[in-house]
Amino acid sequence: MVYAVDNQPPHNVVIVGGGFGGLYAAKALSNANVNVTLIDKRNFHLFQPLLYQVATGTVSPADISSPLRSVLSKSKNTTVLLGEVNNIDPQAQKVFMGDEIIPYDSLILATGAKHSYFGKDEWEEHAPGLKTVEDAIEMRRRIFSAFEAAEKETNPQKRRAWMTFVVVGGGPTGVELAGAIAEIAYHTIKDDFRNIDTSEAQILLLEGLDRVLPPFAPELSQEAAVSLRRLGVTVQTNTLVTNIENDIVTIKQGDRVEQIPAHTVLWAAGVKASPLGKMLAEATDVECDRAGRVVVEPDLSVNGYPNIFVIGDLAHFSHQNGKPLPGVAPVAMQEGEYVAALIKARLRGRKLPQFRYIDRGSLAVIGQNFAVVDLGFVKLKGFLAWFTWLFIHIYFLIEFDNKLIVMVQWAWNYFTRNRGARLITGNDILTPTPETDKYYSPVASRPTVNV
Amino acid sequence: MVYAVDNQPPHNVVIVGGGFGGLYAAKALSNANVNVTLIDKRNFHLFQPLLYQVATGTVSPADISSPLRSVLSKSKNTTVLLGEVNNIDPQAQKVFMGDEIIPYDSLILATGAKHSYFGKDEWEEHAPGLKTVEDAIEMRRRIFSAFEAAEKETNPQKRRAWMTFVVVGGGPTGVELAGAIAEIAYHTIKDDFRNIDTSEAQILLLEGLDRVLPPFAPELSQEAAVSLRRLGVTVQTNTLVTNIENDIVTIKQGDRVEQIPAHTVLWAAGVKASPLGKMLAEATDVECDRAGRVVVEPDLSVNGYPNIFVIGDLAHFSHQNGKPLPGVAPVAMQEGEYVAALIKARLRGRKLPQFRYIDRGSLAVIGQNFAVVDLGFVKLKGFLAWFTWLFIHIYFLIEFDNKLIVMVQWAWNYFTRNRGARLITGNDILTPTPETDKYYSPVASRPTVNV
Repeated sequence: MVYAVDNQPPHNVVIVGGGFGGLYAAKALSNANVNVTLIDKRNFHLFQPLLYQVATGTVSPADISSPLRSVLSKSKNTTVLLGEVNNIDPQAQKVFMGDEIIPYDSLILATGAKHSYFGKDEWEEHAPGLKTVEDAIEMRRRIFSAFEAAEKETNPQKRRAWMTFVVVGGGPTGVELAGAIAEIAYHTIKDDFRNIDTSEAQILLLEGLDRVLPPFAPELSQEAAVSLRRLGVTVQTNTLVTNIENDIVTIKQGDRVEQIPAHTVLWAAGVKASPLGKMLAEATDVECDRAGRVVVEPDLSVNGYPNIFVIGDLAHFSHQNGKPLPGVAPVAMQEGEYVAALIKARLRGRKLPQFRYIDRGSLAVIGQNFAVVDLGFVKLKGFLAWFTWLFIHIYFLIEFDNKLIVMVQWAWNYFTRNRGARLITGNDILTPTPETDKYYSPVASRPTVNV
Repeated sequence: MVYAVDNQPPHNVVIVGGGFGGLYAAKALSNANVNVTLIDKRNFHLFQPLLYQVATGTVSPADISSPLRSVLSKSKNTTVLLGEVNNIDPQAQKVFMGDEIIPYDSLILATGAKHSYFGKDEWEEHAPGLKTVEDAIEMRRRIFSAFEAAEKETNPQKRRAWMTFVVVGGGPTGVELAGAIAEIAYHTIKDDFRNIDTSEAQILLLEGLDRVLPPFAPELSQEAAVSLRRLGVTVQTNTLVTNIENDIVTIKQGDRVEQIPAHTVLWAAGVKASPLGKMLAEATDVECDRAGRVVVEPDLSVNGYPNIFVIGDLAHFSHQNGKPLPGVAPVAMQEGEYVAALIKARLRGRKLPQFRYIDRGSLAVIGQNFAVVDLGFVKLKGFLAWFTWLFIHIYFLIEFDNKLIVMVQWAWNYFTRNRGARLITGNDILTPTPETDKYYSPVASRPTVNV
């Protein structure tokens, strides 16, 4: 317990969510004269930008996760609670975790977002997204099981459907996934099968807009597309997915409608905010945008509730250039640090100017040693960009947990093109077999998965 | 396909199981003039001796697993099939995988064993065993969730039950598990909690015989017990478990009966052979022992079927000194290599002397840097034994998959006492909470778990 110097009761800060936003807020408050309670459903912080590497068998979930308790073990003013907040009472200044009641003086909501299917929720079982460790393990299972099924399949048409991988969404995650699957099929496992030639696998990357990586400069989008094609990925822009069912993806390019038989469809398109946003909106009359994000004030607080803050992917902040800030880690980190600074300033009776996001650039990696980096003042591509990408990611990983080991592992994997983490695990560990298509199909029975 | 030089059709060897026995047989046959088909339920070989390190959060499952296809990718005469054999026809020389029929000339059964509850199968949900990656993840979830539940529990008695860990069975796995849990509670996480003092955790190791590590020399058993007690483990020998239910373990020491309230009970006692043994017995009239192991001939073949071999934990081989060989990796490896050599010899019209196991010793590790090693001609304990243990395990790990990275990781973890892989994952990721004991209790709802 930390007590204020003038014997006032300590100021209680409750943070919900241990992602980039919540964790950076907690770390920035660790030297402050406050009590911090960090609540998360999971006992670890997940380095989401590298989740696609778990999904494609390069690293293990623990390599990109840090136990929240150990990250915060030196923050003696901070208590970590494992649990899910299912109600907020802004008038009484309390949050609820089942029967447990946690009072706050300042509240920071940072529960992020999950993938969204634009109202087509029935697509989820056919085309899983990539937000949690469980999602990544499920993707990994589907990708590697598909090759196993193809190895057993004798019907050439069905075999082709097992060897077709469709990635929906050409943002960074989609580009990274498609590039990694191409590396797997054309390099990593090419000597491992006896009945199939994995280099015949077809990897499609579908993007609704006219180019991949829309947040980047057009010339980098161009470079990324060229590099993906060189890896063997079929990049289709201006392409909308109109249906996913029975292992068939229906796409529309202008007036042309096409049906693609594919057993493995991976979703890297839209996101929607965590339900906590809606919960807050109902309790406070604050506005949510269409994606469920809470529209926040210039200081990231909620209209009428200056002691409630919303940050990261859950927040809709449009006070900078009219457009909401993107749902990326640097935004969440800076917002977390800002809110921590604001709480500390208020306790000292001071004010802070409104939040300003400093955009230091965007990065995406394509395959083993090619990336595009857009730092605003300089645009990089190729190996140098890849190296920059590597350096920046390792820098932030290490900040949490001294994950030097991950660097060694990456170096090792880079030189050996190794993907030793390609375990097929889950309830339904047997590969889909042609005879029992209906039963084993990833579509028919999505197993519950983990790490 | 490999054809015999004299235009005979190639000899088909079917191996069921990709553990130490099956994999060593396959590798030894890779240069032979035969077709090999290796069938396994999983797409990876698991280095089971290190599974307790996954269960206690030191390494990730992929660190101790090697994809079977990549281990055997250079064995061009070998096909890996993912699937489960559910029938054998020894007369027609065929095995069945659902509707798929695989003919063989020689058959090697190496499907191993799983844990056994001596007829008390209802104990399994209360006291999970440690044979698969999923088992290890489940143990990891229970161990780390228990501390989370204790952190929230306010009733001291209930808290104590969450902080009590009972390991049943004082063999190498039980000793290694108990030692690792002591390291976790008393060192790794001791600064991570705010409401509990993890050094108050109680770790009990129960053994039915009069000493731990019964296969070792008595003086090493003695050393191991001393070392475990120094780590904080309560070692109880001559102790039988008579019941496990409602989070209470009932034990019997002589005439004394005691009830121990404990939420986390880990099973490291008996094993029983894979059901394939019984399947074979029904088809061939061969004998199985009480643990379900197939009683084999001096050349590891099955009585009356010289082209069917049973090896590893599935085999009961008692032609050496009357006692069946123990279910450890070196036995399985040597048996696999022997059967491969025998098949090759037969194809050349030669004979081999009967199988002889060369016992190179036993090892067990206790905590971070103490082990006992019994090499027969020399007995080691302490740091030197630990180093020997480390060297031998890394040597065999590397043989499969160049897992140098694991060595670096261990070195790192050794110096930092790190257990970064302590993720709580699963369906039921929320910690057991006092209010909802019944619902969240690991006993009431064992979630399906994975990696």
